[in-house]
This record gives sequence, C-alpha cells and structure tokens, in this order.
Amino acid sequence: MEKLKLMSLYADFRKDLSYIEKELEKSVDSSSPVIRQASLHLLRAGGKRIRPIFVILSSKFGEYSMENVAKVAVSLELIHMASLVHDDVIDDSDFRRGFETVKSRWNNRIAMYTGDYIFSRALVSIGEIEMQTVHQLLAKTMLEICKGEIIQLEYQQRTDQTFRDYLRRIKRKTALLLSSSCELGALVSNASADTVGKLKRFGYFAGMAFQIVDDILDITSTDEKLGKPAGSDLLNGHITLPTLYIKDNPEFQPFLIRSFDGTLTEEERVQMLRYIRQSGAVEKAQEVSALYLKKAISEVQSLPDGDAKKALLQIAAFIGKRKF
Amino acid sequence: MEKLKLMSLYADFRKDLSYIEKELEKSVDSSSPVIRQASLHLLRAGGKRIRPIFVILSSKFGEYSMENVAKVAVSLELIHMASLVHDDVIDDSDFRRGFETVKSRWNNRIAMYTGDYIFSRALVSIGEIEMQTVHQLLAKTMLEICKGEIIQLEYQQRTDQTFRDYLRRIKRKTALLLSSSCELGALVSNASADTVGKLKRFGYFAGMAFQIVDDILDITSTDEKLGKPAGSDLLNGHITLPTLYIKDNPEFQPFLIRSFDGTLTEEERVQMLRYIRQSGAVEKAQEVSALYLKKAISEVQSLPDGDAKKALLQIAAFIGKRKF
Repeated sequence: MEKLKLMSLYADFRKDLSYIEKELEKSVDSSSPVIRQASLHLLRAGGKRIRPIFVILSSKFGEYSMENVAKVAVSLELIHMASLVHDDVIDDSDFRRGFETVKSRWNNRIAMYTGDYIFSRALVSIGEIEMQTVHQLLAKTMLEICKGEIIQLEYQQRTDQTFRDYLRRIKRKTALLLSSSCELGALVSNASADTVGKLKRFGYFAGMAFQIVDDILDITSTDEKLGKPAGSDLLNGHITLPTLYIKDNPEFQPFLIRSFDGTLTEEERVQMLRYIRQSGAVEKAQEVSALYLKKAISEVQSLPDGDAKKALLQIAAFIGKRKF
Repeated sequence: MEKLKLMSLYADFRKDLSYIEKELEKSVDSSSPVIRQASLHLLRAGGKRIRPIFVILSSKFGEYSMENVAKVAVSLELIHMASLVHDDVIDDSDFRRGFETVKSRWNNRIAMYTGDYIFSRALVSIGEIEMQTVHQLLAKTMLEICKGEIIQLEYQQRTDQTFRDYLRRIKRKTALLLSSSCELGALVSNASADTVGKLKRFGYFAGMAFQIVDDILDITSTDEKLGKPAGSDLLNGHITLPTLYIKDNPEFQPFLIRSFDGTLTEEERVQMLRYIRQSGAVEKAQEVSALYLKKAISEVQSLPDGDAKKALLQIAAFIGKRKF
C-alpha cells in the first residue's frame, strides 16, 4: 500500500529514474563473475532510490541536464550501496530488506571487497563531472560517513549515551548523504547559492526524520515487512531514539542486558518489543521526527512552485507516514 | 644494510619526504580515538614510502610544486595503506612488517572501517587538486585495484593458474598504483605528454619487478626480516611466480596440498621452503624480474639528466638487489 504511494509519487520522474537504473546496472558490469553477481544481487535487492530521486528533484531547480544528474545520482546510490555491504559485514546480517546479504550469500571477504569495488565505481562515475567543488564535497561527505561508522562501533552496547550522541550518529549514518544528494544535484545544475543552501538543509532535515522513522519501525513493524527480526538494532547493540527514552527503566534493563549479551530468547524479544511499544517512547520519537520534517518542509516552501517542489513536499509527508 | 642504502638514496629528497610524512600524520588526525590510534599505528609501522618518492621524482621532470606533490603523494600512500588494512582482514594476518596489524590489535570491524576512513582521507587530499584528469585517473586506478583484490580471492588456492594470470594479478596488486604514482606526479607538474608516458611505464615496469622480488623474498628471506613466517603466500593460498614453475612437480604436491588445507607442520614448512629454494624456480623468477627492470630503466634513459633521473635508476637497481 505505502509502496504504491511512493511509486506514484515517483511517477512524474519515472523516465529519469529508469535511465539512472540502467546506468547503475551498467556501472557494476564487470568481467569478474563474483563482482558482477554480488553487485547485481545488491542492486536488485532494491531500496527506495531516495538518493537518486533527491538528486533529480534538486537539479530541477537549476539548468537540468539528465547526463550530469545521472552521474551524480549513480555515484551517490553506489556509495550508499557500498556502505550497506560493509555494514552487513559489521552487523553480521544475513538478510536485508528480505534479501540475502552479500556476506551471507558469498562471504565476508567478498563483501568487503565488493564494497570497495562499488566505492571505486562511484568515484569513476562522479569523476566525469568537471567541478572541483563536487569532488571535494563528496570526499568530505564520505569521510564523515566513515567517521560515523567507527563512532557507531565505539558506541555499540554503550548505555551512557545522550540524545546528542544519537543525533550526531544518525546525521552521519543517513542525513549527510541525503543532504549531499540535494546539494550536489543543485550544484551540478548551477542553481543559485541560496537554492543550494535550502535544498541542502531540506536533505539534512528530511534525512534526520527518515532515520528516526527507520529506528521507530525497527520496534513497531513486523519481521515480515522489515525483512529481518524486529528489534534487530538492539540485538546488534545499537541504542536508538525510542530506546533512549526508556533505557534506564528498571523493567527494561533485563531486556537490554540480554539483548547485548546475546541471551535474549525469542519469547523475551516479543515481550521487549511489546514493552517499548507501550512505554510511550515511540510517540516521543515520532514527535522529534515530526519536528525535523517541519523544518525540512519550511526550507522547501520558499522555493519556486512546480512539480519538483510538490514532489519534495510529498516525500516529506511520506517519510512521516511510511510503514516500510 | 640494504635499508641504509635505500635511506641514502632518499637523502636528496629528505626535505620533501619529511614534509609529506607530516602531512600524512596530519591527515589521519581525528577526534575519534580509535580512528586516530589505528591510523597512526599503521602509519608508524612504516613501509618504504615508494609511492610518495615516485610522485616526488616524477614531478621533478615538470614544474615542481611541493604543495601539489604532497597532496598527490599523501593520497596515494593513504590508498596503499587502506588497501593493506583491508588485505590484512582478508589474509587474517596478525603481523605485517613485524608490527601487529590493525585487525589483530583491534578487530576486523575496526580494520574494515579504518580502511574506509583512510580511503576517504585520500579523496579529501586529492580533492584539492583542480585537474579532472587526476581524479579520473585515480578513480580508474582504484577500480582496477579493487577488481584485482576480488580476482585474487577467486584465484586463491587454485592450482590451474597460468603465468598470464599471475602477471595480471601483480599488475593490479602493485604495478598499477606505482605506475599511477609516476603518472600523477608528472601530470600535476604539467610535464609533457611524452614524459608522462615514459614515467608511467617506468612505474609500471618497476612495480612488476618490485612485486616479483617481493614474492621471491617470501620464499628466500627469513621470518625475522619479513616480520611474518616465510612462505606466508602459500599458507594464505596464493601461488606466486617461483611456485608457478614447480607447482606440478610430484615432490612439491604434498607441500602445496597441506599449505592450502592448513595442515602443514612447522617442520614441513621449512622443508618446503628448502625444496623451492633448491629447485631453480627462484632463479627463473629473478630473470623475469630483471627483464622488467631492464624495461623500466630503458624508459628513464631518454629523460633529461639530473638528480631525479639518477634516483629513479638507483631505485631500479635497488629493487633488483633488495633483501627486505
């Protein structure tokens, strides 16, 4: 149902998206069968292609060139994919979005190098853009994302986290790449500095909201919809926003300890999820997400009217309501 | 002894090298203690800094700018370092050059993300160069190196390899980055296309020779000098040039099988190394390396005389004789 809504929202840009999809497939074509199969497997496992759509929509506020847009969009989606493959190695995940992960279908070594390969492919794609600012921005974004990944490891299983720690973590994990998607899309189409700034901030705020919703869904959704067990974040040692509100509750402590030391039974997992859902923490997290969305929307309001603006606003609305 | 020779060979360029060394240290400085410690550990474990020296020397054939040279040299050395960290994860190595590896001192996850972080740092450094060809060349080089890493995995423990397979593998593993070091050094100093071509080929041929010598030393050197057990390549499932000559000898077969399935005893390892050393395979491999060095030297011969040309020829001579 929600998937359908997202599809119709993308409908106006279907031609652009399917061009990018073809370029993505071409870009991971390789004479090495392992590389080709692992990358295609990853590509076909899908995802919402939010980075490409942000690049497309942001480019519409300048001089739109499909060719430049595709290079940037392909690059950003590949970087996203590469970081997912590496995350699956770290989290030891066998499934993502219901699809077997590269590390599960092949092994950790193949997954690590496939990630490296896809990163390099991303650089080749962006390498065709003749704008130094684009290269610098992408390099700095990647640096911050990598920093975030290590910080995430440092914070794994740590219960002494603050809201600020959490927000900083999701900024690096999600918001930065979405912010850069908007910024780069606007930059390559030579949009004005003011427009670039607004879109950049839209991407950032929307990204923060998106990740908070993602973290909420890990608690409130079903194993089937998630394509992995609900509560996986906690099982992997990650404290997210809903859990931050209740982590010191005495009734929650045993769940937390057992999640972290890997002794939580299936029955206890279900009890834990029920406890969090009934604690009011989910609603508080939803309020924070709504706040970010409001900020995102206010950035877009003053941009010129048109299909692109309408779509950005629809996406913001979708993020607030999404169930997958 | 040999280490001293290499140092004196570098003496003329000590100022440039120590500038680059400082830039390298600065570039891995991070507020995350794990990142900083792991990167510094890696940096201080050393290495011969062959990529920076190739960049410096190649730049001397154009309009030399220390600032540009440093950015390129730092970037290439970081890419080299990042690929070593990832290789140590793959090879499950606890030691490299006698130093504990990142994956051993910390763990595989830290090692993977530290590698990613250092890669990104490399991009930030090269991002300051305003030449599209530089970015494109680096991206393509990284892509080929990553491809090589996966192909190396595909060929692990495979005994049906040809000389061509081996040469293609070491090209991607070593020669390409050295070739690009020379090419990028020449490019950023605006050397003529002819000079760029000669230096690029010098780096390629010298790199092929360098890796063959490396593979020979894994057989002929001592555990102490290598900082890891001699014969590690075979224990890790890699057939290199010396082994290629004898892999089908019936007397060698049991060693090969036991190396690959992990049942080789310490005594058998010593016997195996003795067998290879006495088989004549090492001498044949040395001939191939000498051939590449001859080609490398002939590229440099026609370049203008001077300290840089002298140093390149000395390095070529050193590669042929090095014992570490």
